[in-house]
Amino acid sequence: MTVSIIGIGLLGGSFALAIREKYPKMHFIGVDASPVNGQLALAKGIVDEVLPLAEAVAQSTLVVMATPVNTIIDLLPTVLDHLPTGATIIDLGSTKELICTIADAHEKRAQFVAVHPMAGTENSGPGAAFKELLPGKNLIICDREKSNADSLTLVESLFRDIGMKLFYMTPKEHDLHLAYVSHLSHISAFALGLTVLEKEKDEQAIFDMASTGFSSTVRLAKSSPQMWAPIFDQNRTNVSDALAAYIDFLQQFKTVIDTQDLQTSLDFMQRANVIRRVLDGIEKR
Amino acid sequence: MTVSIIGIGLLGGSFALAIREKYPKMHFIGVDASPVNGQLALAKGIVDEVLPLAEAVAQSTLVVMATPVNTIIDLLPTVLDHLPTGATIIDLGSTKELICTIADAHEKRAQFVAVHPMAGTENSGPGAAFKELLPGKNLIICDREKSNADSLTLVESLFRDIGMKLFYMTPKEHDLHLAYVSHLSHISAFALGLTVLEKEKDEQAIFDMASTGFSSTVRLAKSSPQMWAPIFDQNRTNVSDALAAYIDFLQQFKTVIDTQDLQTSLDFMQRANVIRRVLDGIEKR
Repeated sequence: MTVSIIGIGLLGGSFALAIREKYPKMHFIGVDASPVNGQLALAKGIVDEVLPLAEAVAQSTLVVMATPVNTIIDLLPTVLDHLPTGATIIDLGSTKELICTIADAHEKRAQFVAVHPMAGTENSGPGAAFKELLPGKNLIICDREKSNADSLTLVESLFRDIGMKLFYMTPKEHDLHLAYVSHLSHISAFALGLTVLEKEKDEQAIFDMASTGFSSTVRLAKSSPQMWAPIFDQNRTNVSDALAAYIDFLQQFKTVIDTQDLQTSLDFMQRANVIRRVLDGIEKR
Repeated sequence: MTVSIIGIGLLGGSFALAIREKYPKMHFIGVDASPVNGQLALAKGIVDEVLPLAEAVAQSTLVVMATPVNTIIDLLPTVLDHLPTGATIIDLGSTKELICTIADAHEKRAQFVAVHPMAGTENSGPGAAFKELLPGKNLIICDREKSNADSLTLVESLFRDIGMKLFYMTPKEHDLHLAYVSHLSHISAFALGLTVLEKEKDEQAIFDMASTGFSSTVRLAKSSPQMWAPIFDQNRTNVSDALAAYIDFLQQFKTVIDTQDLQTSLDFMQRANVIRRVLDGIEKR
């Protein structure tokens, strides 16, 4: 069985490494705009060969689109055009509505399964890929009833086999929830990074004085702009709403601090503490 | 030598545990408003006995004030009043200007050393204390020239001996920098927690869909309101300025997303990426 990974980065690479361990006879083809990424992926054993897109797709049982979501949008119709009968294509994109809208317009929609593995780090590229990234994490599948049974079964089997837990929802639900539990966190980190860098023009001061609390809150500010700019753009309505709500809470906090309203300050934080119950659930996975 | 820990929580407890390992003959007295904390601290071996404040101070060579900063403000004059000749008192508070102003007004100012260990977790109480919290982290000492030589030497020796790196600055500088590298991170996490809880009224959805990126950015939202409300209040001018700057960046981000200005979006994030250099420095400690 041949699997093509289009975009051999953190996600595509980690998927290949996890699958490879369970399926040692599977043949992996890498496709990447960057020749260097292709070479690194070969050398790291992520893929067995690197080919141009059309050649790779023509030989594949499974095609995995793991590029930034704007590239997925651009390439998906062409990849579907060239997809062999009986083959399956998935995307790993962090947004789903627009991608699914484009897939829905194609005659081979049934060969497409829209997925999103809820996993990542702030690092990018084949150098960042590691086989332990996906196991134990959650996978979201959108609009499963639009995929044919064989394609869906293939995808569910592979992801379950590497230890992911499957969840199903519509693309609209996906993008709405992700705006709050993922996209907003990334923007808050980017903005925090910008604020600290702007004000603490002396990087040494940040280094000397910050501790791990700061590090953890701003860690996502290291994330790839090329990956995240298209995500925020495609999910702009939900992200904008989430930002508006977040900015509102911050303004309320500022007012409470400016007016020395200690009781409301305590109340806000006690309400926020409820997140402990949720986070402890996440961290136990 | 007898050390009194006033407020046997995460910081006070962890300090005692780290010192105890290096100084097994040191005698620790715990003072805490909560009898349960006192019992837990005894059972955990953090302190050797629990006494009322005045009794503890009267016997001490070193008094460590490790309560929330509003309690430090309330108790400091009284503790200084009762401090024996030749003894030293330190506070571990996350704000310094107001505490130092109060200490400066006391005739025994020279026996006081203002410190702040840049370390913590989102947990509280003696149950959260562990000996590895402080070693390897940074300690800030403010206005060292106002402490007498013996007191300063005692404090510097103890903290160096448990593996902390010492930095010196004025209380004003401390509070200004901390607003950006610590206090703002905590508010951003609290506000993020509130936003997600408000919008995702279904906690199960957060749990199902969030991953470790979300967890790390919102982790600090588990922090103690009783500890943080007084900190934001005492440092309100700097915190308010930091919040204003942060909110401004978020509003700029929102505008960029609303107007689909991909180039500026990429620029913002590329600028924020510079934080990687700083964070990698912090995480190597």
